[in-house]
Amino acid sequence: MLVRMQPTAEDLQHCSIAATLNLIGEKWTILILRDVFHGIRRFDDFLARLQCSPAVLSARLRTLTEAGILRKVGYKEPGERERFEYRPTRAAVELLPVLVGLLQWGDRHLAPHGQGPVALLTPQGRHVRAALVDDMDALVRPNDIELSRVPREAPPAAAADGRPAAAGA
Amino acid sequence: MLVRMQPTAEDLQHCSIAATLNLIGEKWTILILRDVFHGIRRFDDFLARLQCSPAVLSARLRTLTEAGILRKVGYKEPGERERFEYRPTRAAVELLPVLVGLLQWGDRHLAPHGQGPVALLTPQGRHVRAALVDDMDALVRPNDIELSRVPREAPPAAAADGRPAAAGA
Repeated sequence: MLVRMQPTAEDLQHCSIAATLNLIGEKWTILILRDVFHGIRRFDDFLARLQCSPAVLSARLRTLTEAGILRKVGYKEPGERERFEYRPTRAAVELLPVLVGLLQWGDRHLAPHGQGPVALLTPQGRHVRAALVDDMDALVRPNDIELSRVPREAPPAAAADGRPAAAGA
Repeated sequence: MLVRMQPTAEDLQHCSIAATLNLIGEKWTILILRDVFHGIRRFDDFLARLQCSPAVLSARLRTLTEAGILRKVGYKEPGERERFEYRPTRAAVELLPVLVGLLQWGDRHLAPHGQGPVALLTPQGRHVRAALVDDMDALVRPNDIELSRVPREAPPAAAADGRPAAAGA
């Protein structure tokens, strides 16, 4: 990776990696997201799978809901009071490269035989992995990436709608 | 994302996402990795950029070195005692999809105008992003991913060398 220009101290204060970590970087938060992608939707089902306390689970679900990563939807079983389930939003789906990246690194470096208990497949049975691609969806080799500073006062025109093409998932 | 078969409680104990988080999921650890990819190599330079204590920095650098993610290399300025710098290994480079995924999510959802202070570009000036691809390097849509259990007792033949094709970066 080529560093064209070192980020400044002020840049680091606005680092998007740190900002994302502050929001979702806590272990239980990421494991809740993992479980959401396993199809888990209800409080008691999260609780049965995670080894955290109900209070921690509540707090993390609230963080994820307030951040727009999960959506709280009411449901009611016959004769019971209304309860809620938690569904992933588009913002949750946009975190999939992070989760899949963590999964494949753990499979490769920490799991016996380089394979954990879960595989991600396409309908054709091809393995899915997280990788780096460019605007044209072509694979990018890590050595070909240049890191460049974006002046804070002049955001790029493509970001006028708050959604730069580069961040599309 | 289609869940073909729910992971069992035992699967969850061997979850590669949780294993990776246990190793590198702490905020400073990931920010050290960010700085490594910014070209930072030396203890004092990490310390000047991170807002953590020297003891925390030491501990995290040790974790990353013991995990084979950083490599400690001696250097000696004239007239000074030997010091060490920390260089990324291949295992560090394999974490790039995670770091880039965190960066682009933060840019999109947390940064003003959808752009943080750092851009990742190819030599042709194309933006780089983390995405999901299959064995043939074709983009995979999140809805097309099937999550499937791998029986623990029979790892796939492709993993005989401990490096499944699916985890290639």
